Amino acid sequence: MTNSGNNLWAVIMAGGGGTRLWPASRRNTPKQFLRLHGHSTLLEQTCERLEGLVSPERILIVTSSEHVAEAQRLLPKVSADNILGEPAARNTLPCVAWACAEIARRDPGSTQIVLPADHLIEPAEAFRDTLRAAVAFAECNAGALVTLGIRPTHPATGFGYLQTDKAIGDSLGQEVFPVERFVEKPDAAKAQEFLVGGKHYWNGGMFIWTTENLAKGLETHATETWNALDGASAQQVRLAYPSLESVSVDVGLMEKAGNIFMLPMGYMWSDIGSWSALEEVIPADDCGNHRSGSGPLIAKDAKGNITFSDKNHTIALLGVDNLVVVSTPDATLVCPKDKSQNVRAMVDLLKERAQDLL
Amino acid sequence: MTNSGNNLWAVIMAGGGGTRLWPASRRNTPKQFLRLHGHSTLLEQTCERLEGLVSPERILIVTSSEHVAEAQRLLPKVSADNILGEPAARNTLPCVAWACAEIARRDPGSTQIVLPADHLIEPAEAFRDTLRAAVAFAECNAGALVTLGIRPTHPATGFGYLQTDKAIGDSLGQEVFPVERFVEKPDAAKAQEFLVGGKHYWNGGMFIWTTENLAKGLETHATETWNALDGASAQQVRLAYPSLESVSVDVGLMEKAGNIFMLPMGYMWSDIGSWSALEEVIPADDCGNHRSGSGPLIAKDAKGNITFSDKNHTIALLGVDNLVVVSTPDATLVCPKDKSQNVRAMVDLLKERAQDLL
Repeated sequence: MTNSGNNLWAVIMAGGGGTRLWPASRRNTPKQFLRLHGHSTLLEQTCERLEGLVSPERILIVTSSEHVAEAQRLLPKVSADNILGEPAARNTLPCVAWACAEIARRDPGSTQIVLPADHLIEPAEAFRDTLRAAVAFAECNAGALVTLGIRPTHPATGFGYLQTDKAIGDSLGQEVFPVERFVEKPDAAKAQEFLVGGKHYWNGGMFIWTTENLAKGLETHATETWNALDGASAQQVRLAYPSLESVSVDVGLMEKAGNIFMLPMGYMWSDIGSWSALEEVIPADDCGNHRSGSGPLIAKDAKGNITFSDKNHTIALLGVDNLVVVSTPDATLVCPKDKSQNVRAMVDLLKERAQDLL
Repeated sequence: MTNSGNNLWAVIMAGGGGTRLWPASRRNTPKQFLRLHGHSTLLEQTCERLEGLVSPERILIVTSSEHVAEAQRLLPKVSADNILGEPAARNTLPCVAWACAEIARRDPGSTQIVLPADHLIEPAEAFRDTLRAAVAFAECNAGALVTLGIRPTHPATGFGYLQTDKAIGDSLGQEVFPVERFVEKPDAAKAQEFLVGGKHYWNGGMFIWTTENLAKGLETHATETWNALDGASAQQVRLAYPSLESVSVDVGLMEKAGNIFMLPMGYMWSDIGSWSALEEVIPADDCGNHRSGSGPLIAKDAKGNITFSDKNHTIALLGVDNLVVVSTPDATLVCPKDKSQNVRAMVDLLKERAQDLL
């Protein structure tokens, strides 16, 4: 296998609007625009992670039309032409298809890396190695659609899984597995089986493919969407987009296509699905607390807590353990770490009682 | 006993600078300037409680010179002449002596009520009844210095106590007790004895006396301080004040004087010595939480918590019980209710690490 030398593009899917990290994440400030770890946003970090691999003029950002300006502000090296503003949220398949149509128009012989904008991955160098191997594999295997799998570290029930078989070989020294099946979020028993069995990987929604292969796949398995976007003008996209089928890449393309391959990621990855996920991502400080955001934390007789605030706001913890404490200018959340996945329930209460805080 | 009809004055001691309610209370915003319960500050509520009993032109506020402007802003009915700005904090005796010298100059035949600015007392009508009885007693009993005692509701170790004997009679239908002894903060066993014995009352630092009796008492027992302030010009006070002995009224006057009498308060009184004190003062909401300040509280599976925030800041509690959660623009405190008296320890940490938050 050799790298054919296609131009390499990246598509950053930044259209998410989740509320699982409320009150930090809001309708107007979804997770990818938060500074959770370090001084830049997850979106910026997603681009920084590609440095040396994909140059900024070949990075496309797909985000909500409301967030185009913010994305431009954060990413001055990415030209305005490369930031696509979705007129409506239609899940990931239309997003990937629109970006593919755009890249096909500009650089049909290219290869693409498609990444969510709101993940934390470390170390970046290891991730780039995996991507390089995946790119090489995608370019050398006609028709291959490549995805990345995360080796499970615990029996997670919050992710879909990729079911694999024996490795079919390697690419640039990294093993490549055929994907036999996409598995929906399992129950706890099933997740435990998956963990022990060793044939299942977390599906992180990251893809590598040549533009040509992806276009073919979309044409075959997502024909209507592809036809609406392929060769369409900006205005045609704007008009067509809201009527496109809202479906994920997994369901709308990958589960239907054959020739799916997976490269494993054996290092830190998190989609930060809840505040408690930050515990695995952010090292504990001297007092054993995990400080997200850039705000100071002062703790006395307090450990195992996860905090978030901005640099002008201090969180002071006295005699409390294993809490999530999140401070924003107009709302504070306090909940036990092991209940942080229930923040959705709090958000549901807000829908009834305090819409302005969503 | 009959009311002699002296003009009645009130002296509001608003010089405290405590940090026990940090992060709401700060050097620049001590407790008396906080809106803890209802829409006005404790200082305003202290004045409002006297409505119908003392007219605003006879209310003197003694506060730190730095807080004079804020006191004027809050109390537009009190003239600027009636707000005395202490050039230095010297505990309560110099404060009471200065106010006495001022009242003696303006209205020597008057009677005074001296009250801390940072207590919560309800109902106001019952309190005014006690004050009326205390005033009548002080005016009809030559040489009497009168104080109010709070009937203990639990074996508190955080207060000084007044030790009494049998009631000597009544004033306007309220029993009057001789004070035999001022007792320093007791240990838990002693406090339990006091509670059971029925002869001890909490010392709330509230006093009623004629200006003439107080002046005599000060001249006798706090001679140096009195001589420095009696008849002094504003500039003389400013120069002398910082060198006055820093001592409380209890220690510098009451413990030395005879002829001390006490009227009991049998209703809600709190000096709000810690966040947890608000639990007894602020009724629980439907979810069983105690909301201080004017900020909204949204609770799910959360009860017995005490919260404080201002009206533009929502506190959201999910699955936590018996916490204190205080949000201010630059700092948030989270601690268990039963540890809230340790906020001082947090403040000590701040002295080392974040002076600007004090």
